[in-house]
Amino acid sequence: MPRVAVLGATGYTAFELIRILLRNPEVQITAATTRQEGSPPISSIHPALTGQFDLACEDLTPQQIAERADFAFCCLPHAASAAVISELLDGGVRVVDLSADYRLNDPQVYQQWYKVEHPDPERLGKTVYGLPELYRDRIADQDLIANPGCYTSTSILALAPFLKAGLIEPTGIIIDAKSGVSGAGRSPKLGTLYAECNESISAYGVGSHRHQPEIEQVLTDVSGKQVDVVFTPHLTPMDRGILATIYAKPLGDLPEADALAVLREFYAGEPFISVVKDLPSTKHVTGTNNFHVTVRRTKGYLTILAVLDNLIKGASGVAVQNFNLMAGYNETLGLLPV
Amino acid sequence: MPRVAVLGATGYTAFELIRILLRNPEVQITAATTRQEGSPPISSIHPALTGQFDLACEDLTPQQIAERADFAFCCLPHAASAAVISELLDGGVRVVDLSADYRLNDPQVYQQWYKVEHPDPERLGKTVYGLPELYRDRIADQDLIANPGCYTSTSILALAPFLKAGLIEPTGIIIDAKSGVSGAGRSPKLGTLYAECNESISAYGVGSHRHQPEIEQVLTDVSGKQVDVVFTPHLTPMDRGILATIYAKPLGDLPEADALAVLREFYAGEPFISVVKDLPSTKHVTGTNNFHVTVRRTKGYLTILAVLDNLIKGASGVAVQNFNLMAGYNETLGLLPV
Amino acid sequence: MPRVAVLGATGYTAFELIRILLRNPEVQITAATTRQEGSPPISSIHPALTGQFDLACEDLTPQQIAERADFAFCCLPHAASAAVISELLDGGVRVVDLSADYRLNDPQVYQQWYKVEHPDPERLGKTVYGLPELYRDRIADQDLIANPGCYTSTSILALAPFLKAGLIEPTGIIIDAKSGVSGAGRSPKLGTLYAECNESISAYGVGSHRHQPEIEQVLTDVSGKQVDVVFTPHLTPMDRGILATIYAKPLGDLPEADALAVLREFYAGEPFISVVKDLPSTKHVTGTNNFHVTVRRTKGYLTILAVLDNLIKGASGVAVQNFNLMAGYNETLGLLPV
Amino acid sequence: MPRVAVLGATGYTAFELIRILLRNPEVQITAATTRQEGSPPISSIHPALTGQFDLACEDLTPQQIAERADFAFCCLPHAASAAVISELLDGGVRVVDLSADYRLNDPQVYQQWYKVEHPDPERLGKTVYGLPELYRDRIADQDLIANPGCYTSTSILALAPFLKAGLIEPTGIIIDAKSGVSGAGRSPKLGTLYAECNESISAYGVGSHRHQPEIEQVLTDVSGKQVDVVFTPHLTPMDRGILATIYAKPLGDLPEADALAVLREFYAGEPFISVVKDLPSTKHVTGTNNFHVTVRRTKGYLTILAVLDNLIKGASGVAVQNFNLMAGYNETLGLLPV
Repeated sequence: MPRVAVLGATGYTAFELIRILLRNPEVQITAATTRQEGSPPISSIHPALTGQFDLACEDLTPQQIAERADFAFCCLPHAASAAVISELLDGGVRVVDLSADYRLNDPQVYQQWYKVEHPDPERLGKTVYGLPELYRDRIADQDLIANPGCYTSTSILALAPFLKAGLIEPTGIIIDAKSGVSGAGRSPKLGTLYAECNESISAYGVGSHRHQPEIEQVLTDVSGKQVDVVFTPHLTPMDRGILATIYAKPLGDLPEADALAVLREFYAGEPFISVVKDLPSTKHVTGTNNFHVTVRRTKGYLTILAVLDNLIKGASGVAVQNFNLMAGYNETLGLLPV
Repeated sequence: MPRVAVLGATGYTAFELIRILLRNPEVQITAATTRQEGSPPISSIHPALTGQFDLACEDLTPQQIAERADFAFCCLPHAASAAVISELLDGGVRVVDLSADYRLNDPQVYQQWYKVEHPDPERLGKTVYGLPELYRDRIADQDLIANPGCYTSTSILALAPFLKAGLIEPTGIIIDAKSGVSGAGRSPKLGTLYAECNESISAYGVGSHRHQPEIEQVLTDVSGKQVDVVFTPHLTPMDRGILATIYAKPLGDLPEADALAVLREFYAGEPFISVVKDLPSTKHVTGTNNFHVTVRRTKGYLTILAVLDNLIKGASGVAVQNFNLMAGYNETLGLLPV
Repeated sequence: MPRVAVLGATGYTAFELIRILLRNPEVQITAATTRQEGSPPISSIHPALTGQFDLACEDLTPQQIAERADFAFCCLPHAASAAVISELLDGGVRVVDLSADYRLNDPQVYQQWYKVEHPDPERLGKTVYGLPELYRDRIADQDLIANPGCYTSTSILALAPFLKAGLIEPTGIIIDAKSGVSGAGRSPKLGTLYAECNESISAYGVGSHRHQPEIEQVLTDVSGKQVDVVFTPHLTPMDRGILATIYAKPLGDLPEADALAVLREFYAGEPFISVVKDLPSTKHVTGTNNFHVTVRRTKGYLTILAVLDNLIKGASGVAVQNFNLMAGYNETLGLLPV
Repeated sequence: MPRVAVLGATGYTAFELIRILLRNPEVQITAATTRQEGSPPISSIHPALTGQFDLACEDLTPQQIAERADFAFCCLPHAASAAVISELLDGGVRVVDLSADYRLNDPQVYQQWYKVEHPDPERLGKTVYGLPELYRDRIADQDLIANPGCYTSTSILALAPFLKAGLIEPTGIIIDAKSGVSGAGRSPKLGTLYAECNESISAYGVGSHRHQPEIEQVLTDVSGKQVDVVFTPHLTPMDRGILATIYAKPLGDLPEADALAVLREFYAGEPFISVVKDLPSTKHVTGTNNFHVTVRRTKGYLTILAVLDNLIKGASGVAVQNFNLMAGYNETLGLLPV
């Protein structure tokens, strides 16, 4: 049974990850890290784990982690993540990186969007993007997987079937995405105080959100054509969930029924993906690794609507899919049934 | 001082309307109607009015209303509204109709979208659309004003400056709108139960929402060109507020600064409209008659972002603007300062 | 593997029950009932089950249920429940009743609080109350278990250790309880509309809530003394969770540390109960079968604070504990780890 | 027209205060202070004021304030407040202090609960407590008013009628209070992040909240007997509003109808207080200066239920009542109608 470390264990993503790993009978969590002093028990940081799981959260070096774990889930901030991962890999630890550090192929693009020089540029472009529905075959034998962003997964999974089949224009795609507040992390900031974002919806990062180049890179790779999107994220007054409402122009005739069939065929047999007839709500997938998607024909556009739980299918759940594939387990272990 | 009646006094819109009218020193509310039996006091229906205002809500005929009131605000459902208004006008009562009954010009279009034959087709096409920022000069001497829909006002006010100036393509405009749950009314339905729509966002009425033809009709009138929009409303887990995120294609060169200047110039001197630099949140206008709008240039699109309170600037507040104009008062009476 | 039926499958409790049962590897759900016409698939009623579980919800007679199932979870309304259960038991089906029908021992008391004559009075007083932490030994060989109410479990589990040990006064206990809105059920009502209960907290059923006699009956049984409580439930703007803040008078000296020790000793080894040091939040137990409790000494009172998820530990989770015990399985099957 | 300064203008209380003052035709806001650099316009701090009010927020000395203003509303943190107020008074500025600095009479008690030495102990015990419903006659001619705390006002207004008349036991009173999150202020803290307190209710400060000695001091003064309360505040997932559920023991016979009559008589003619028959919800008073209260007889207790808006009747609204009295205006100016 693989020994697993969770790096950066204090955030919401790490919390959900630990809950999923506890349900996975083929995993032993042997280390959890934080920079907080005093090695606090994980249940003091995440009280929901009280009585369920207790491990000290320690400030460990990559070497210490390598002694204790075969796999690491890295929930550190970008740049901090790559700095550690390089050493973990040297120490023989296989890694699923939940940060953005290894998602983009080009160090220049990384620097442009993340405003720091990449700490480990050699691995960029060689790391597999961990979206199993698109890259399943390439994940199993990797030592490092770049786990996708939450908006990114929502957008890519909604669009890939149409782009890959050349059924929509690859440019001018509009992605209007709405996310719960947990996506903004657990660091105290004015903008994510309850009384600031409760009872309010607003856009943010218009034209400048870092998931935009990631969406474009992967969809370009999938479709073989230069994909260009306008991506607008919104902060929605709810804990979790993402809804992407996507507007794309069909190439040639594509009635609604055919568009639905495209989705159904593409995702046939996928354990976590449901092509639904009714309009999806984020609540239908909250707390699960499921992805619901549908499509409507509205005048000259396809309107594609897709939902997932940003902390699970958008982060920790797909990370465990990746881990299961890397470890040679059933991909759904710990994730189904929910 | 005009005597005013509120028809259909039990809903959220009527409640906000009454609060605003109570702040208007030039109004006396002399009648409130409901079909509920027993003539309940308004404070038993809206407990927030306890100690502030009390009037029996009665099941009154148009004739009875005409005896008691000079003006009527009609908050009845569509079709029911027109049936009453015709008689009110005959009785000499001037009316602001908050239903959709007199907004569309064409009885055929009305029937297509509302699925009933219009009860008073002669007045369609002759009734002034009560958006003072666009039609102020025509409102004062009317006996009947069609008060705009909430999504409609948001969309029209955001787009009119650009369409009127011929600066954006009139077709293919995408309006992705997010509304609080109060917009769905106060009748008990599964879909608006707390535990159904809390912690969830979803689209509804994709391609079939009744505000779409209203938006197109008014913007076509404003611009002189056939306007065509794709309108997607979303139910957002909050009481009130609408955010419209609008994607339009500029015609010719239109840098962001110029686009902002277009808005500022168009709305110079408007008491309720602010062209803002930062991205607007619905919370910035909650409880007020204000409208905040900004614009961003994102790749080939203008992204216009606009917010208002659906119950006030999207319904009761603009209704009082219309009333003030009709009664010859300062347009802001009861609405400013807030 | 036992075949299991879920009666009254359309509500929130049934939904959570099905999710838990799907995680229980020793269960096969073979029937789900509703009075809705057309035998709708369960995923059309609970879209979150799409792709995970699909079974037609049918309008089945007790005889039909008995042919298909060995166990039944009864999520029907009170009175309707007892009418069916009697026949199920005759048909050899073992039952966990999630309604209130078999919780009270005295048909007169039932009639007084539920305003209907009890349909099956003979079984009252003979049915085991399904709170495993108190009555575990008596559950296994039963054919019918009365599953506890949500407020009831919270209150009883918080108070039983002190009352059983005679450490607090059995009368004058104040239970100030706060519940999420899902506790009010899934039938459309004005009072549970989003825009009514969002952003608001209020008490309801002061002095008249039906869980009060249930709490008193069980605690009287546990303590051997007549227990008397003042119970005030509150509707809290959140989906789920109950917090009970309980004020009781210690008999004799009982410092805070000793009071905590009483709880810890009483619940040592219980898989779902954690005696915590910090003040519990409902969020710490949301989505789980866990119960967190602590106690403070404040002037002349013990203040006991306890939380659980009303739909799980307060309903469906404890129902599965009872089922597991009846079926001879590990009590935590399907419930841990979460 | 008095010139008014708002000190500490960046918080939620100051925002509501400014909104109320803008509605007060007899006030001119001439200064707003903050320690933020760069003298930001108030609308950049509170975007809801955009287009309605704009004044630079400056880092002003007491002397500068005294040059510009006749009155000051002090929304600074405790201890910081008293340090400034002393100088303001010397400069001839009359002050309503919204901090806790002048509420307690005894510097020792202040130090015990606030953990700092009082900066201006001479004024303690001489400053009038600004609850107009109790101390109206003493407010008008003061230069300094100690504006009450939010929990405090709720509790005192609910209990004073019974305590003053000697109708309930003055000790052992239980106040179980539930507040919206805005009460915790606008400084970023983990505990008030949206994703922490959304969908959760919890108690805090059990036995140690600073409003407890304030409640006891005022009620002791009102009743002439030593009053002793157990006060438990709860953080409730909503922006604003406080509900206090209070349990008190009647002395002698006091049926429910009589208890209601006690409240009605005590508050007859009060413009902001309504004694209601139905159970009050915080939403009934949100955005207003109103206070709703009722009482139930439950077994041996009176259960008193009271609601107010913590930012208005619990802070800024009562501050304007005090100001109006001090300035010789109608007490309701700017506050009614709402």
